[in-house]
Amino acid sequence: MQQQETDLYPSRQGKKETITHRHDPVVYPYHKPELESTLSPEQIARYINDGFLVLPDYMSDWVEALQYKIGQLKQIMSGREELITEPDSNALRTIFNPIEHNQLVKNFFSHPRILNIARRLLGSEVYAMQSRVNIKPPFTGRSFPWHSDFETWHVEDGMPRMRAVTAWIMLTDNHEKNGPLYVIPGSHKQFVCCEGSTKDNNFATSLKKQMLGVPLQHSMKELMGNKEITSVTGKAGTVVFHECNIMHGSPDNISADPRSILMCVYNSMENIAQKPFSDLQPRPHYLNSRHPAPLHPLNDDADTHHDINPAIAISS
Amino acid sequence: MQQQETDLYPSRQGKKETITHRHDPVVYPYHKPELESTLSPEQIARYINDGFLVLPDYMSDWVEALQYKIGQLKQIMSGREELITEPDSNALRTIFNPIEHNQLVKNFFSHPRILNIARRLLGSEVYAMQSRVNIKPPFTGRSFPWHSDFETWHVEDGMPRMRAVTAWIMLTDNHEKNGPLYVIPGSHKQFVCCEGSTKDNNFATSLKKQMLGVPLQHSMKELMGNKEITSVTGKAGTVVFHECNIMHGSPDNISADPRSILMCVYNSMENIAQKPFSDLQPRPHYLNSRHPAPLHPLNDDADTHHDINPAIAISS
Repeated sequence: MQQQETDLYPSRQGKKETITHRHDPVVYPYHKPELESTLSPEQIARYINDGFLVLPDYMSDWVEALQYKIGQLKQIMSGREELITEPDSNALRTIFNPIEHNQLVKNFFSHPRILNIARRLLGSEVYAMQSRVNIKPPFTGRSFPWHSDFETWHVEDGMPRMRAVTAWIMLTDNHEKNGPLYVIPGSHKQFVCCEGSTKDNNFATSLKKQMLGVPLQHSMKELMGNKEITSVTGKAGTVVFHECNIMHGSPDNISADPRSILMCVYNSMENIAQKPFSDLQPRPHYLNSRHPAPLHPLNDDADTHHDINPAIAISS
Repeated sequence: MQQQETDLYPSRQGKKETITHRHDPVVYPYHKPELESTLSPEQIARYINDGFLVLPDYMSDWVEALQYKIGQLKQIMSGREELITEPDSNALRTIFNPIEHNQLVKNFFSHPRILNIARRLLGSEVYAMQSRVNIKPPFTGRSFPWHSDFETWHVEDGMPRMRAVTAWIMLTDNHEKNGPLYVIPGSHKQFVCCEGSTKDNNFATSLKKQMLGVPLQHSMKELMGNKEITSVTGKAGTVVFHECNIMHGSPDNISADPRSILMCVYNSMENIAQKPFSDLQPRPHYLNSRHPAPLHPLNDDADTHHDINPAIAISS
């Protein structure tokens, strides 16, 4: 483990909650010929300004195969701690670390159309710090309160700087009524130093229902200002990139439609997790990989998901 | 108490959940000259078909005075059992029976522009069976699961038939993000005989978080069919009438905006609550009035809310 960096983003240290400025760029330069055409200048400007980017129907031809493999994963991983149920029921809420348990998921997040956007935004080689399937079942899928992912990753996992991005694909249509992601555009430019302090194993309950790292109401009002809460909706196959510090949450799913997404957090190889910025022990590896290895874009000839050998498609 | 009628809508009697047809009309004939112009034939047809009716900006000039009086009520009624807090916090969720505690609220629901619509729809004189303020505070306001009000009123209060309507005014803007009412248009034409059985004092917890009388997922899917969940949104001052058996719910308020509404359930004088259609004791009077007295439309000269004498405006 490297020497600990200065804590630029102290949070949950028993102090009064404050809102400070971001000290890091949103997009980092990276001059590689293969990255030139990943995003247009307008798309990059929008990501810098809003903190997220929606690519409708971007990977639609992967949806069916991914859904199938994730259905298998539910069975294969049954009983493992990577599976989290809903707070009010036994319905499955989250599967962590599918990337380590399924080759197709790994191929997806190694696809140049996804991976190269992450490399372009973070200005470096990247690794899969965390992956997950969020299921949000019909009727019973519960909300996620407002939070910045970075705040948790910094305090609980030791991510030093804001240099990570989450990429996710909608596996079902995400619409206004099935608990879509809500974001506050532009909120990634500020950082909320939250109140409270973190107890060991907070994650064991926070994965069901987050309580710490949730800003107080007056901070949320300040952060929202006159910004509009934006629902991130789209058809299955839509891909979204959101910045690690954007303030986001999501409402209950009280519709009859599941709202499933598959996510991967890309972290820069220059931003590898250290000791948590708190007195905590690091969380389990499936929440934050402790063996970062740069992902390599798949070659074109490996770039197919239809003929994955079922025998190797699922491996733990 | 009258002799008990036959139970046309048995529910929570320990049997398998089923969906049956409605046995009652949605709108009842009532030929009174003063009711002729309350609603257009198109509006009545829409109410019959959808089970609800939205009247944008209908009583906007009442909003400020009502908000002020309800602010006072919170103080005056503090500590009383009519005040219900949120399941996860001490934030105020509901004030029951404001109509008995404030003259302006009573005037509002006696205003001919409101009351005569209720008389027209129910085809009889009507009384205020229940009144409430639903507050849904910013960030902490929790969802209401799918339910039919009639199911509860029938099983827990002894309302014999479907001949009641809820009128409510938006006291703040109700928008997509602050937990608006969701309805399933047309669902009032069927009745879900729910599973489970009701324990005494169920209401003590159900007012915070309803568990019984919430249809199972397969019933909800059947009821939804290919209907779209509809959000009932509008500016403060908008008035809504919804039929007692329409399936409705609402999501969390995770926005910074409160979502407050003031409601009154008008029940027909021909449909007065009897013994509950279960083994329960009747619920407290503030949930279901046991002294029904027909409401009389205010005269035009009493029809002003601006010059209410503050000394008499609040009386308990």
